[in-house]
Amino acid sequence: MQFTAQEISLMLNGTIEGNPQVAISKLAKIEEASAGALSFLANPRYEQFLYSTNASVVIVNNSLVLNGPVNATLIRVNDAYNAFSVLLEKYNTLKLNKSGIEQPSFISPGAVTGSNIYVGAFAYIGDGARLGNNCKIYPNTYVGDNVTLGDNVTLFSGVKIYADCVIGNNVIIHSGAVIGSDGFGFAPTADGSYNKVNQIGNVVIEDNVEIGANTTIDCATMGSTVIRKGVKLDNLIQIAHNVEIGSNTVIAAQSGISGSTKIGENVIMGGQVGVVGHISIAKGSQIQAQTGINKSVDEEGKKWAGILVQPYQSFLRSQLVVQQLPELKKRIEELEKTIAELRNNTVTTP
Amino acid sequence: MQFTAQEISLMLNGTIEGNPQVAISKLAKIEEASAGALSFLANPRYEQFLYSTNASVVIVNNSLVLNGPVNATLIRVNDAYNAFSVLLEKYNTLKLNKSGIEQPSFISPGAVTGSNIYVGAFAYIGDGARLGNNCKIYPNTYVGDNVTLGDNVTLFSGVKIYADCVIGNNVIIHSGAVIGSDGFGFAPTADGSYNKVNQIGNVVIEDNVEIGANTTIDCATMGSTVIRKGVKLDNLIQIAHNVEIGSNTVIAAQSGISGSTKIGENVIMGGQVGVVGHISIAKGSQIQAQTGINKSVDEEGKKWAGILVQPYQSFLRSQLVVQQLPELKKRIEELEKTIAELRNNTVTTP
Amino acid sequence: MQFTAQEISLMLNGTIEGNPQVAISKLAKIEEASAGALSFLANPRYEQFLYSTNASVVIVNNSLVLNGPVNATLIRVNDAYNAFSVLLEKYNTLKLNKSGIEQPSFISPGAVTGSNIYVGAFAYIGDGARLGNNCKIYPNTYVGDNVTLGDNVTLFSGVKIYADCVIGNNVIIHSGAVIGSDGFGFAPTADGSYNKVNQIGNVVIEDNVEIGANTTIDCATMGSTVIRKGVKLDNLIQIAHNVEIGSNTVIAAQSGISGSTKIGENVIMGGQVGVVGHISIAKGSQIQAQTGINKSVDEEGKKWAGILVQPYQSFLRSQLVVQQLPELKKRIEELEKTIAELRNNTVTTP
Repeated sequence: MQFTAQEISLMLNGTIEGNPQVAISKLAKIEEASAGALSFLANPRYEQFLYSTNASVVIVNNSLVLNGPVNATLIRVNDAYNAFSVLLEKYNTLKLNKSGIEQPSFISPGAVTGSNIYVGAFAYIGDGARLGNNCKIYPNTYVGDNVTLGDNVTLFSGVKIYADCVIGNNVIIHSGAVIGSDGFGFAPTADGSYNKVNQIGNVVIEDNVEIGANTTIDCATMGSTVIRKGVKLDNLIQIAHNVEIGSNTVIAAQSGISGSTKIGENVIMGGQVGVVGHISIAKGSQIQAQTGINKSVDEEGKKWAGILVQPYQSFLRSQLVVQQLPELKKRIEELEKTIAELRNNTVTTP
Repeated sequence: MQFTAQEISLMLNGTIEGNPQVAISKLAKIEEASAGALSFLANPRYEQFLYSTNASVVIVNNSLVLNGPVNATLIRVNDAYNAFSVLLEKYNTLKLNKSGIEQPSFISPGAVTGSNIYVGAFAYIGDGARLGNNCKIYPNTYVGDNVTLGDNVTLFSGVKIYADCVIGNNVIIHSGAVIGSDGFGFAPTADGSYNKVNQIGNVVIEDNVEIGANTTIDCATMGSTVIRKGVKLDNLIQIAHNVEIGSNTVIAAQSGISGSTKIGENVIMGGQVGVVGHISIAKGSQIQAQTGINKSVDEEGKKWAGILVQPYQSFLRSQLVVQQLPELKKRIEELEKTIAELRNNTVTTP
Repeated sequence: MQFTAQEISLMLNGTIEGNPQVAISKLAKIEEASAGALSFLANPRYEQFLYSTNASVVIVNNSLVLNGPVNATLIRVNDAYNAFSVLLEKYNTLKLNKSGIEQPSFISPGAVTGSNIYVGAFAYIGDGARLGNNCKIYPNTYVGDNVTLGDNVTLFSGVKIYADCVIGNNVIIHSGAVIGSDGFGFAPTADGSYNKVNQIGNVVIEDNVEIGANTTIDCATMGSTVIRKGVKLDNLIQIAHNVEIGSNTVIAAQSGISGSTKIGENVIMGGQVGVVGHISIAKGSQIQAQTGINKSVDEEGKKWAGILVQPYQSFLRSQLVVQQLPELKKRIEELEKTIAELRNNTVTTP
């Protein structure tokens, strides 16, 4: 994609200073931009970079007064930050603007597909699957039998969705994520081996959810593992069977939630957190990275941390003392010595 | 799949009370069931739900005496729990009952395949690969050159098995799992860079193993990384080169085992455990989630936990005191003050 | 692949003792070798195995004096260890010696490909992609639009590379790794939901990098997430947006690096380490497994550990005392009791 400064200026209803024919092919921060890049200046603290940037075009506020010569072509607008956001959005839309059915792909005759969809080569749409309008199924993606996708769903390359799962509108799932794999359920037998507990439930993902690369969400044993609307999951997260994640909860990479646990809405969870099964976490909780949540968190809106979960401030205070422990131990030994002496003295005193 | 109450009743050799023509299309817990669902009542503590459930059909014991009106059609059998398990199994078998070769798929002319197999579209079977009977290879799956699969192996969509690996009978591998990727072996050079140590071994997976979604098992440097019979691995687990996991050991999600470590049989390991390389873990060990195992565990059948592994009970006792540390520190300071006073007193006493 | 002892001997310019026609089809350690295997003996401590090994052929030093009868055919060379390394290399080269374009595959008409490449079945090469010479793209792999690959790049089965990423020469990426997925960026709104921050940057991977199975590397918000030359990443690692990893840094499995963090060169990081965002780690740092790095590490070449990062030796000393805490607490209680008595005594003394 390549545009001239003039074309960009027209989109933004701006005014050009400099060469209107200069071409740009990418967007970049003003301090990192190279030739061919379009950048913007909104925060006055970055003004210095305007005079040294290699960007070919910079969007600036109408109100900006120059304090030196500028090599870049300028586009003046009312609100440079906002104008740049508009371009970012347009750029992304163009980049992801795929449509049509590439060949070879596999769309089962029993599948139903909406309008204006993209199905990449080697994508597989199973029997009884239903795809809404404007869905984009990238190459090498697997949509199992009877899976339902809402409108405007994007499945990037290599997503795998097991049979019977239900995905809402405006959901984005990144490459390699697996939705609906069997829950980890095995019944021990007398000889120490295990029998598989059949996992016949599914995963339900509501609207506006985004799921990161290589994240795994297991189906319920019976019923549904549920990801409520607006949830954002980062990469390499594990969600076990029968878990429920509340609306607008955000979980960072490599965290894991064990079976049947319920996480409230608007929770913020750091990376590499582990949560045991069959508990609940109150809404609005903020969990520090690497926390081990071994019991329910019932108070809403609090901060938590630690290998056995505790309030965040207590955790910090305890860990501070942990780092002083070798010295504290010496002080205890010193006390014991002193007391032994004192006792000898006191005993002999009377 | 849709059945009438009558058809289900015939399968179970049961007796119908209510409408025999009511249709069911799913299985559900009695307290969660909606119209069209089949459920069961075995535990008397759940009897209350029988009178309010939305299930269309409920399987109950012959011995059950009703205490109120029931909307659902009932199927009476000798053992309702057992009858439901039979249906669960049948349901799962139907759901996974794939067969035939979908097109386009890639089966190398040099591959040998057993009878009654399923090969999904875009599955790849490499040169010299050998597949047993009743194998199910879901779409977009990769079976490398000279890989051997036993009978009744299921590879869900997007499994990748590198060349020369050997998979036993009745093995289930979930989507996105990678078997046989290169071990992480590099030799440092004088200039700070690394030379790759060629990894020419393979992975051997014995019978009745189940492997979770996006789990990775590296091949041995030479010889084999070995997963013994009956092992169950959850999602997103890392098994490094030359590791051996003993029979019927169960490992929860996101745990990682470093190179050349040997894990005994019937070990139970929680999630997010990390195990260093070149050690062994005794059979029957139970490892708490998030444990860091930094040395061999030699005693059999014990519970372990902690960031530097220790007996579980000691870990709990220590962590309890860790949470009291700020207060304990104050008590030490108090003691030091008191002793300083006492010493002054005692010194001046004589 | 099968060779006779004679063929191997010719490759190595060696001398045969025993049957030159014996066939070998695999390489193995002398203590583990079975019939049909080729092994070597370099370390005198392993000489005992020479007299009992089942290997069909063993490479030994010219200088070796036998102390008993040997069943295997021997190949004598100047340096047995070196000769075996040469064979290992040749073996690996043969095993990975794929070329040609398998069908069906998808190479966009707008893609440019170098000479002597391998493109496996169901591999997808997007519009505007550029592949260097000797690239090997295994089956079911996705190379997005405008992706650039250098020479001698190997992408194993199921690698996914998003649009616009740039991969250097001699890079190896293992199965299921995802390069260029969206960074985890969301702006909170007044109603508690989040708006997606468009992620329009890419990932740049320099020469000689190796990336493990199912590892994920997010694209930058703007600009590039950068993996410098010679970096080795193990399996299931998470690299967030705008991270930079310095040359020849090695990271073990399941570690995660949060957004915008810069890791210096020649760092060695253990498994399951977590690093917060927007910090830096000095070059040559050595980070223990499971460390939580919550602030910048500025001193070069030191060892670190702990849930809130601290020097490794301090961590070990602290953790030792943590395990003694229940006993230390008792000693503090003992002291308090003694002092209470002493005080009573002292008070009554004068």
